[in-house]
Amino acid sequence: MSGLNVSPEIERLIALLAKLPGLGPRSARRAALDLLKKPNALMRPLALALGEAADRISTCQICGNVDAQNPCHICTAPGRDITTLCVVQDVADLWAMERAGAFRGRYHILGGTLSALDGIRPEDLNIASLIDRASHEDVKEVILAMNATVDGQTTAHYITDHLAKANVQVSRLAHGVPVGGELDYLDDGTISAAMKSRRPF
Amino acid sequence: MSGLNVSPEIERLIALLAKLPGLGPRSARRAALDLLKKPNALMRPLALALGEAADRISTCQICGNVDAQNPCHICTAPGRDITTLCVVQDVADLWAMERAGAFRGRYHILGGTLSALDGIRPEDLNIASLIDRASHEDVKEVILAMNATVDGQTTAHYITDHLAKANVQVSRLAHGVPVGGELDYLDDGTISAAMKSRRPF
Ligand SMILES: [Zn+2]
Ligand SMILES: [Zn+2]
Repeated sequence: MSGLNVSPEIERLIALLAKLPGLGPRSARRAALDLLKKPNALMRPLALALGEAADRISTCQICGNVDAQNPCHICTAPGRDITTLCVVQDVADLWAMERAGAFRGRYHILGGTLSALDGIRPEDLNIASLIDRASHEDVKEVILAMNATVDGQTTAHYITDHLAKANVQVSRLAHGVPVGGELDYLDDGTISAAMKSRRPF
Repeated sequence: MSGLNVSPEIERLIALLAKLPGLGPRSARRAALDLLKKPNALMRPLALALGEAADRISTCQICGNVDAQNPCHICTAPGRDITTLCVVQDVADLWAMERAGAFRGRYHILGGTLSALDGIRPEDLNIASLIDRASHEDVKEVILAMNATVDGQTTAHYITDHLAKANVQVSRLAHGVPVGGELDYLDDGTISAAMKSRRPF
């Protein structure tokens, strides 16, 4: 937008919005206009929410979750199973697991996956702290819940190897047909995995 | 995300981000996480930019543009042609016209289009103020640059009718093949319009 008759305040807002994942230049302009049309209903509340989050939210020193307390709600919840650790790539995956409500243990967030292409090595991820935690006598099982991608599975293998000395069972999420999924839309790998893991009906 | 172990600060941030056009619930969560990972590089600057825009930006009383000054930069620019008004639906369209650099007159922002479906009537748009401005002796031409949609064209017809008493020439943008456009991807209406308006080569 540079060089146009757009005020610097609006240019700056658009430039920052365009840095958000999922917003390109065009949608950043649309979002900026929408905010400008709703200064009190949306723009000021969002400014406030961002400021408060920046002030209050930090990364959990135990699991890597983001929360207003450190250690986080999940690490300190008395009701959760301390014998099971679920390893996920990102906080978004923790949220997805929590939405599903299928896990009541604690988490460990890697912060990504190993990647030869992107130069991400074991020391760039929270792997050492995972080995530490898994070696604690309370922990009986480590569930690897990385994405079913090549990098995710490479990371899962690496972690499994390095958990050999820890006295824990290592498991991973099952592959198969998504609930509600249509075979016709699934890739061959998923169908093969679902066939291999078929169960009596 | 309600009922989950997500802090209220993060829930509020996600809820507000999800109100932005172009961001659904999933992309709002991803945007929130990205912001939380970059508190100083992105979250605080965005909070500041939103606050400043909310404080400083207002709607131009003449044309409907959003700007740090009122009347806006464009309405007060001495170098711009005061005999021509370009009527657009929205500020985003003014920005698009300015990016194209194909117009050096002034603008009038309607704030939408007439729509029987959405119950948008002439008095809901900045049409009365347009008639006023077009009736000023300086104005010689009104260019209707509404979207080439049914509602856009209905609005153009309505405005043309109501400009009959003003001593101005009313024109509209040409229809045709977009520059770089491939015929195979264009709808029949565009191809017909381009054929009808064909010009000697
Ligand atoms: Zn934690
Ligand atoms: Zn103006």
